[in-house]
Amino acid sequence: MKVPTSDDVAAAADRIHGHVRRTPVIEVSPGTFGVDAPLVLKLELLQHSGSFKPRGIFNRALTQDVPAAGMVIASGGNAALALLHVGRQLGHPVEVFVPETGPAVKIAKLRRYGAPVHQVGRDFAEAVVACERRAAETGALLMHAYDQPAVVAGQGTVGLELEQQCPDVDTVLVACGGGGLVGGIAAWFDGRVRVVAVEAAGSPTLAAARAAGERVTISVGGVAADALGASQIGAIAWEIAQRAIDDVVVVPGEAILDARQRLWDELRICAEPGAAAPLAALIDGGYVPAANERVAVVVCGGNSDPATLT
Amino acid sequence: MKVPTSDDVAAAADRIHGHVRRTPVIEVSPGTFGVDAPLVLKLELLQHSGSFKPRGIFNRALTQDVPAAGMVIASGGNAALALLHVGRQLGHPVEVFVPETGPAVKIAKLRRYGAPVHQVGRDFAEAVVACERRAAETGALLMHAYDQPAVVAGQGTVGLELEQQCPDVDTVLVACGGGGLVGGIAAWFDGRVRVVAVEAAGSPTLAAARAAGERVTISVGGVAADALGASQIGAIAWEIAQRAIDDVVVVPGEAILDARQRLWDELRICAEPGAAAPLAALIDGGYVPAANERVAVVVCGGNSDPATLT
Repeated sequence: MKVPTSDDVAAAADRIHGHVRRTPVIEVSPGTFGVDAPLVLKLELLQHSGSFKPRGIFNRALTQDVPAAGMVIASGGNAALALLHVGRQLGHPVEVFVPETGPAVKIAKLRRYGAPVHQVGRDFAEAVVACERRAAETGALLMHAYDQPAVVAGQGTVGLELEQQCPDVDTVLVACGGGGLVGGIAAWFDGRVRVVAVEAAGSPTLAAARAAGERVTISVGGVAADALGASQIGAIAWEIAQRAIDDVVVVPGEAILDARQRLWDELRICAEPGAAAPLAALIDGGYVPAANERVAVVVCGGNSDPATLT
Repeated sequence: MKVPTSDDVAAAADRIHGHVRRTPVIEVSPGTFGVDAPLVLKLELLQHSGSFKPRGIFNRALTQDVPAAGMVIASGGNAALALLHVGRQLGHPVEVFVPETGPAVKIAKLRRYGAPVHQVGRDFAEAVVACERRAAETGALLMHAYDQPAVVAGQGTVGLELEQQCPDVDTVLVACGGGGLVGGIAAWFDGRVRVVAVEAAGSPTLAAARAAGERVTISVGGVAADALGASQIGAIAWEIAQRAIDDVVVVPGEAILDARQRLWDELRICAEPGAAAPLAALIDGGYVPAANERVAVVVCGGNSDPATLT
């Protein structure tokens, strides 16, 4: 397994330039959200398909020969949305596999793309099995939501952009499920900036691996399971985590929903629960910045029902 | 009447620095929203209180002696929300007057601030009468939602920021009701950049004034009346318009609602209808950019019910 480096992230940024949006950052003053520090928010929910996922998918699709059978992926929803977007943009057929438990807003958006959407299995892991079987049948290129080097390198471009936009950042808080995003960002910074993985209480894959000293399978649940629903930290993210992820914080579900509501009330941002987890760590006290520590949080997806915010 | 100049806008930017958020821009590629040109969106809905209004209110509050009776304003909703925010930040009591027809989401947000909210009159103009009466009674500083020099100069800082963020912009499309925002932005650019006012079909105050050769009172309605509900273009905006607003486009209500939905579908942005009007002018063909014309649209508010997007 090739673990991506900062050079791979830089190469990914060149490769996907023009295919992805350079998402903006906004700085909010101390006291916003009840957090004493100023914060920088990287608004990656404005990315194509409503999450960071197209970065990694584009990067892999542009580094592989995509067969006539196209590409397939298993996903909690966001990686599937991203693959449908990438397939349409690059002219490849795609099929996606999502668990039967996927949230209605993501399923509805997937169906609007018009590509084959298979709802299979009770969770992400079961959808992966069905997806791999399909790839073996058709010869389609198998894409993984978080555990392929090109995918992780592509997600790392969020960190590269953030550093360009905010060169004096000390610490970045990033949501962690399978670890593609936080692994990629940590690969980019490679110890130059403190990277903190934030996990939802229902799916603490990295915290569990740290406690065990190795990757372990956990049962998955909680308010952010649709986005952070991996049952095991990715092998790539686990490798990177041991040298370049500084800390892991696990936040309760209620804190995530509260942070999501505050993003709406204060900023008119409609994040999905998983994407509110990093801010929740700050509001809930799971991560307490030092004086003058310059903290950024990545708001990495917006594919949830806005009606739940009123 | 003192009509603000670009110097006044620059002074306002210095004065309100630290009180307002520097809102980000995002560039979207040609084809997004079905528009053939690349577009820059100025995401002013991320401002404190959910619209651009605090810029002008802060600027006036910081240039006047605010009496012990505080400040009062009449508003369709956004200027009232802004005044409540400014009053809290600067430590002044405030009272606000909104029409009985104000949208539930704005009224509910106003009430959460805990300050006196008077629902008076059928439209903005009637709320103004009640507000002026109250100011005469109490001695409070009368704030106007769009027709005071310091207010217009403050709103113009949206243009100043946009120019810093996107120096090569050729044209800016801005929603127009009473004209505080588009007037301020036009005062800043002062002919250096093409400024296009976009009005909703139900309240074309500037188009009506242009047709008549003078400010005229119109009856107000339509999908964006809560935000663009002035019955007459402001005197200040009218002065500025005659030298520095290049064009006026009136867009139908359905086009506004369609643009609002597309902002959500494509970008996960929840704009209020009035704030979607500039994009609607591009989607609907009311404004057609020339080849290589670099167009920016201001998305100026997000105080509407997100449940209407699903």
